[in-house]
Amino acid sequence: MSKIVQCIPNFSEGKNITTIKKLIDVAKSTAGVTLVDHSSDENHNRSVFTLIGSPEGVEEVLVKLSKIARDNIDMTKHFGKHPRMGSTDVIALVPIKNITMEETVKLSEKIGERIYNELEIPVMLYANSAKKENRINLANIRKGEFEGMSKKLLEEKWTPDFGENKIHPTAGITAIGARSPMIAFNVNLNTNNLEIANNIARIIRGSSGGFKNCKAIGLLLEDKNIVQVSINMMDYNKLPLYRIFEIIKLEAKKYGVTILESEIIGLTPGKALVDSAIYYLQMNNFDYNTQVLENYLFD
Amino acid sequence: MSKIVQCIPNFSEGKNITTIKKLIDVAKSTAGVTLVDHSSDENHNRSVFTLIGSPEGVEEVLVKLSKIARDNIDMTKHFGKHPRMGSTDVIALVPIKNITMEETVKLSEKIGERIYNELEIPVMLYANSAKKENRINLANIRKGEFEGMSKKLLEEKWTPDFGENKIHPTAGITAIGARSPMIAFNVNLNTNNLEIANNIARIIRGSSGGFKNCKAIGLLLEDKNIVQVSINMMDYNKLPLYRIFEIIKLEAKKYGVTILESEIIGLTPGKALVDSAIYYLQMNNFDYNTQVLENYLFD
Repeated sequence: MSKIVQCIPNFSEGKNITTIKKLIDVAKSTAGVTLVDHSSDENHNRSVFTLIGSPEGVEEVLVKLSKIARDNIDMTKHFGKHPRMGSTDVIALVPIKNITMEETVKLSEKIGERIYNELEIPVMLYANSAKKENRINLANIRKGEFEGMSKKLLEEKWTPDFGENKIHPTAGITAIGARSPMIAFNVNLNTNNLEIANNIARIIRGSSGGFKNCKAIGLLLEDKNIVQVSINMMDYNKLPLYRIFEIIKLEAKKYGVTILESEIIGLTPGKALVDSAIYYLQMNNFDYNTQVLENYLFD
Repeated sequence: MSKIVQCIPNFSEGKNITTIKKLIDVAKSTAGVTLVDHSSDENHNRSVFTLIGSPEGVEEVLVKLSKIARDNIDMTKHFGKHPRMGSTDVIALVPIKNITMEETVKLSEKIGERIYNELEIPVMLYANSAKKENRINLANIRKGEFEGMSKKLLEEKWTPDFGENKIHPTAGITAIGARSPMIAFNVNLNTNNLEIANNIARIIRGSSGGFKNCKAIGLLLEDKNIVQVSINMMDYNKLPLYRIFEIIKLEAKKYGVTILESEIIGLTPGKALVDSAIYYLQMNNFDYNTQVLENYLFD
């Protein structure tokens, strides 16, 4: 069974069309990977790419992209609203099919090592790849940003996982890490009472006592005059969509409020939706790998 | 976007390991297709293969398989419980992704023409590929079986779509046709009262006034001491799984009976399940082609 990995590199360039085009060209022309999506934000001065492919393809394209970013993005001249510390600021790796989290962590280490050895950019391992407690959270690593990084790296606890205690002079430093697939899931309620959305968000999110793999806030959608529970599902294998959906329905009922509709923003692994179908259809013995026809195409 | 087709050829050989192995070897070694499943039944003296791949790969492998079947299966010496009329008895083609039914019909015609031109086996087009009313139903075409086919073909209404009015002396005749994906879907009820399953089957199946794309019967599962509504979903795009499931739930309620569980036997296109997840999660704006990550692997 072919292994499939998703990668999401973030580059500190959102304006210069020539540089962005170079990155896109490499993303499109490297064997073994498909460029699924890319977006550039001028205000953030940042571009986010989403690619999917074999571990080998993903490794190859990330080293190539990091080289282009290093050679074309000078962090000493970078301004943008989004916090950043390197020309390739962060790379997330996500196991999609036939690959474990452990293997994805190993892949992140291999790519991190190559980025330092071949491009002389120091690398920090974050998320599931983190080797130190203080590096699990990306925001911790990035604190101080590019401008404060030279000084920060002198502290022993911030020695890069690959590289010495100094940044690349123009490309800064890159974080790379494996994480579970994240799904941006929003549930709209049949009310414009923001307090209800806030209360429900508080009930479901991990930080206030709800589900560990759930981040949530309440939002007022002014154009529609309704409220939304806006959710990041951090691991659909541990916290399926239907469970969050049904709990929101249950809690909204307390106020006589119903669910208007839900939405997934951007991409989702197919299995996240199939898991919910299996729940609602009470299909207890379904085997995703062998019973879904398209899965044989990855063999 | 790559086009993906499923094909299900049925061969009139279920005992001779050498012949079956030759068929498997070709199915596994032809570029552009994956052998998903194969099963051989000695009583029926018949083997059923399921393959998935590009239209070109499917065309190539079906011509190759038909040649092996022609050269190794002598219908004048064939005995088996299952009705049959040729060494390659029937080939179903099913559009899976990025291909329309019309294109799949065209593909069946192209393959049928090659089977006659290159292998001298006459071909009848059936199901959605049928050019005549009497050929939509495979059982109509196959009536009389191999032994009666020479005489049957002399009637003008049974002139093959490709070939003249005579069978191949040892390989007989082959039917090929495009059809919608079929899903074998069973719903088990919390009762051993067969009448309830029969009543519900009657309500949902097309032949007794229910849904056009639904075939259904009631069954008693003696080992479990429960009844089952056993369903063939003939077109999940027109009749989704959730609709049948919810109507069975609704009708069972009349008897105070609940659904115990459901199951899909064998394979299903992933979209059939995703469609049900979208219904239950009220996800009205979901776009299967662009939002499911794995779909980009087919590009």
